[in-house]
Amino acid sequence: VPVHGPRRAVLCRRQVSVLRERQRVRTEEAKVTFEPTGRTVYVLPGTKIIEAAGRAGIILQSPCGGQGTCGKCRVRVMSGAAHADAPAGPHALNDDLRAKGHRLACQTAINGPMVIEIPEESLFEHRQQVLVSDSGARTELNPTVRKVHFSLVPPSHDDDRSDLTRLREAIGPAINVPLDLIQALPGFLRRNDWKGTAVLADGTAIALEPGDTTPQAYGVAFDLGTTTVVGTLFDLHRGVELGVDARLNAQIAHGDDVISRILKVRESPAKLLELQQAAVGTLNAIVASLRASTGVPADRIYAVSVAGNSTMQELLCGCDPSALGEIPFVQAFDDPLVLRADALGLDVLPDAEVFVFPQIGGFVGGDTVAGMVAAQLDRWDVPVLLIDIGTNGEIVVAHNGKMLASSTAAGPAFEGARIRQGMRATAGAIDKVLIAEDVSCNTIGNRPARGLCGTALIDAAAELLRVGAMDETGRILAADEAPASLPRAVRDRLVPIGHETNFLLVPAADTSIREDIYLWQRDARELQLAAGALRAGTCLLLRRAGLRPEDLGAVLLAGAFGNFIRRSSAQRVGLLPRVPCSSVRFIGNAASMGAKLAMLSKDQRAYAMDLKRRTEHVDLSLDPEFQAEFAAAMVFPTADEVPCAS
Amino acid sequence: VPVHGPRRAVLCRRQVSVLRERQRVRTEEAKVTFEPTGRTVYVLPGTKIIEAAGRAGIILQSPCGGQGTCGKCRVRVMSGAAHADAPAGPHALNDDLRAKGHRLACQTAINGPMVIEIPEESLFEHRQQVLVSDSGARTELNPTVRKVHFSLVPPSHDDDRSDLTRLREAIGPAINVPLDLIQALPGFLRRNDWKGTAVLADGTAIALEPGDTTPQAYGVAFDLGTTTVVGTLFDLHRGVELGVDARLNAQIAHGDDVISRILKVRESPAKLLELQQAAVGTLNAIVASLRASTGVPADRIYAVSVAGNSTMQELLCGCDPSALGEIPFVQAFDDPLVLRADALGLDVLPDAEVFVFPQIGGFVGGDTVAGMVAAQLDRWDVPVLLIDIGTNGEIVVAHNGKMLASSTAAGPAFEGARIRQGMRATAGAIDKVLIAEDVSCNTIGNRPARGLCGTALIDAAAELLRVGAMDETGRILAADEAPASLPRAVRDRLVPIGHETNFLLVPAADTSIREDIYLWQRDARELQLAAGALRAGTCLLLRRAGLRPEDLGAVLLAGAFGNFIRRSSAQRVGLLPRVPCSSVRFIGNAASMGAKLAMLSKDQRAYAMDLKRRTEHVDLSLDPEFQAEFAAAMVFPTADEVPCAS
Repeated sequence: VPVHGPRRAVLCRRQVSVLRERQRVRTEEAKVTFEPTGRTVYVLPGTKIIEAAGRAGIILQSPCGGQGTCGKCRVRVMSGAAHADAPAGPHALNDDLRAKGHRLACQTAINGPMVIEIPEESLFEHRQQVLVSDSGARTELNPTVRKVHFSLVPPSHDDDRSDLTRLREAIGPAINVPLDLIQALPGFLRRNDWKGTAVLADGTAIALEPGDTTPQAYGVAFDLGTTTVVGTLFDLHRGVELGVDARLNAQIAHGDDVISRILKVRESPAKLLELQQAAVGTLNAIVASLRASTGVPADRIYAVSVAGNSTMQELLCGCDPSALGEIPFVQAFDDPLVLRADALGLDVLPDAEVFVFPQIGGFVGGDTVAGMVAAQLDRWDVPVLLIDIGTNGEIVVAHNGKMLASSTAAGPAFEGARIRQGMRATAGAIDKVLIAEDVSCNTIGNRPARGLCGTALIDAAAELLRVGAMDETGRILAADEAPASLPRAVRDRLVPIGHETNFLLVPAADTSIREDIYLWQRDARELQLAAGALRAGTCLLLRRAGLRPEDLGAVLLAGAFGNFIRRSSAQRVGLLPRVPCSSVRFIGNAASMGAKLAMLSKDQRAYAMDLKRRTEHVDLSLDPEFQAEFAAAMVFPTADEVPCAS
Repeated sequence: VPVHGPRRAVLCRRQVSVLRERQRVRTEEAKVTFEPTGRTVYVLPGTKIIEAAGRAGIILQSPCGGQGTCGKCRVRVMSGAAHADAPAGPHALNDDLRAKGHRLACQTAINGPMVIEIPEESLFEHRQQVLVSDSGARTELNPTVRKVHFSLVPPSHDDDRSDLTRLREAIGPAINVPLDLIQALPGFLRRNDWKGTAVLADGTAIALEPGDTTPQAYGVAFDLGTTTVVGTLFDLHRGVELGVDARLNAQIAHGDDVISRILKVRESPAKLLELQQAAVGTLNAIVASLRASTGVPADRIYAVSVAGNSTMQELLCGCDPSALGEIPFVQAFDDPLVLRADALGLDVLPDAEVFVFPQIGGFVGGDTVAGMVAAQLDRWDVPVLLIDIGTNGEIVVAHNGKMLASSTAAGPAFEGARIRQGMRATAGAIDKVLIAEDVSCNTIGNRPARGLCGTALIDAAAELLRVGAMDETGRILAADEAPASLPRAVRDRLVPIGHETNFLLVPAADTSIREDIYLWQRDARELQLAAGALRAGTCLLLRRAGLRPEDLGAVLLAGAFGNFIRRSSAQRVGLLPRVPCSSVRFIGNAASMGAKLAMLSKDQRAYAMDLKRRTEHVDLSLDPEFQAEFAAAMVFPTADEVPCAS
């Protein structure tokens, strides 16, 4: 049973001065609403607008890496107070724009409730030249689905061509028309006065609809994560995003990580169907929710794209992933699959086309390829590192058109698993830890703490390393071993239990679970394992590519977790290489973005396949060099200067 | 109630001398067996070997039209007496061959039980350069189905390519692998030591089989007739025919002809499914019978081809044929369909490929195209007329690469329907009628007569016209109106009933039904309608093509009925144009042959599509010129010389 005094409870939630940011942050989160989407998030005061936008799923351009020099992340503050200390760079805003409320999102901190307008040109999506708003040109909107409104000349004595030939004249002679539509055709044409709309997907007719329905065309892009599934409903006619819904993957009931789910199938082949149905059920729940909020009918959803890791994609498709559970970790398929929705049991048009992303190898699956598409990973002028931290951690190094990809078992710790009081990043999770005169913890949703999530784990360890209360081996020091400079309130939190010291984050009185919440010594060990694996993998991939960490021109952080991480903390615990802060960029949920791109454009599908072909899969798990590297990486980096300030 | 005397009963079945052929034929049929297939038929003595072979489904080459000049129909008499009076043409057999039993099938009549060997090179199929025997080169055997035996290198640390990529390396990178096979693949490869056989159909993998099964590949070709369905089981590996089975189309229960079946669906849409299932049930019964006699497993049948008329093909595919039941007679589809067997419910491999023939227009359907393929209709140096007489009669004129096709409602009379004592050409049907001193009737299977089939209808009318007992208007003359030269026994058969005269064919005592069998006056009217329609259609098509009947270099008779017709009789009643006898050729069940060719060779499928594209459909039914022509054709031709002797 952890020991704690009532006095600390008072300290923990009172306002503290944050030394690092040299400003006061209030623990009450501020409500921020983004227009024109109307999305709302709650953030700690002091949070940069660009970060808050990312949390709302709105990824802004930041080619300069948040240095305030490129001027690409411009937003307009419609209401609320914005504190900004913008440097006067070449692209800084002029006074006229400032007077109208324009600000640089990367340089402007949120101080209280705000309403912020995001101009289309500031969206990261815009850089992809993909339409996500009503306006603008349609050049890049090029989905596999298209609709053709037709009005046929009825047959006559002089023209007794067959119904199918007559239809093909309107929709294209080479269009494949499946049997069910041929069967329906004679009745359809005669009931509807030889007029209607044909829905075509990649050379195949998938539906006939009475009247002119060309403006109605919808698709859903899925990021099928081990833990979380995100679905985005798109208007394929206008290229507009209509809604997003995220759910826990119902496979969770069969195990937290991919390995446990693979083992389930290995033990009992009947489990394969159960796991598939769990995945399909999750997708269908998201579709139902998106339809309920938009009124889009199921049979107007013509396209589905799915990006997931190897195990998720195989389970969704009903492929036994057992071969991923044993050396040498072989995938069932790696080329993209194009399936019919009813083959999977999705509640959309039965003939709708389902695109499943290509995979690279082993545990490097479709979500990584989708992320590479979103990041346009081969089009950077500098060596780039892409890190997608989900339940697994995928690393891709791109340099001179060559790409190397690998996967490490980073996951459970960052998702709160294997952490004694860990939890997912949901309401009540501690997600930020700062140490100054005392400890300041932020919880998600500003609720009493229930546990700590991945970012808090990293923050806590990084802060303890910074103030000298943890050594490079990951050992939390006893109160009497800690440096003299350590504030008293902080020192009091070093609580000996058995032979180890644990660090009190929130005393029981301030929690909803009425239990002290600690960073336990063994939590630090889990962090060392997870961060060490990613770090060792990164080092090894870089070495294979003939690069040193300092050669990297950009480090792209993707994934739900990656976007909430503090760069400085991640560098401090060795999760990220020590590159200049401007080189570290948050690119949002890149897998989800890639899935959207593949749904919106054939070219992006071809690009995905191209990236897949040009990427070499490196299986680190069996590499003796990796084992040595991993052992070394288990030790936290020494306290050199950490380039990033946040 | 017909009137008859007992004396005539004796005359009818006794041996008579046949004036026309100047030889005695015995009414007892002779058993003829053909090797190497072992097929057996019973034929009237005096029947030419080439005709007997045709009845056994073995079509011999006869480019000279049975004149004994080309020498292509050579066979070897293994046992039994053969009477031959072969002319000494340039290709006549030399004495050496004659001594070894070789004969020309077109010049050799059967006198008693025989066993005849058919050399491969004499087969009509051989002219198609398609393999139907064990021996010979495989150049022309080019089915869409092929099998690839593979032995894959198992994955290793250095080679962790996916199972699908590994398979595709063996079967071809562009092969489409459907989801069910992708799902089965990981288990299949690991259970079978990374070896097996893939079955590919036209770029798609349709099955995976353990071991090397490349020699096992089967297909069924169907001639889907309104009345009769014929299925042929083929060994696609060797190009060998394994068996033939024919059944009544179970749709018969819903009406005899296509119009009555179309009306059924128009009255009640639910009938469509019933009719489809009746057709599928018939095909499945044939498959079951072919499998039972050969031991071929259902899941080794990879290909099915179907040639039927428009209504049959549409009903089989579950398309509502109602538009064929009203002006302007429009087909649901005309391009060929390639379907999955399980979409139709066929009891073969579920993923087996079903090829449904292209159609030309209106009632000119896939069976006509198949017949054109079998006849290579565009490759003749002379103007050609193809007539396929089934329940409907299809006519195609080909000249200078241009083709015109039409359909007439010839059918029911020739199939025995609408004939008062008519029946199908099955056991007990009178199929041949000769008039000399008295009447000689042959029945199928040498059984007591039950009724008359289409050929007997034509024979009887032609003979009555020839001996002057019927006038050109089709009226059967009363006994006192008949020419004086008419033998007494024949005259006695002109039996007045009411205001009309009918012609007694078989008295009750010699029948199995204990009832006199007549050619009724109204039967002659039905014949006039049917033959008149075909004749008028032929005239009109020829005129459209800028041809006169005498320009025709060849008249090809196809269809079950066409092959049993006597040319002279058919010309006498105006069913066939009066071309020289050598120009009239029996080409067997051309639709069935075309279906086989499409199953055995992709090139033949492309050829079918090519012929379809180049053929203009002429709808005669609404043509005022046709109505006038039809009215004129209702009168039988005058008694000019009939060129054909048989």
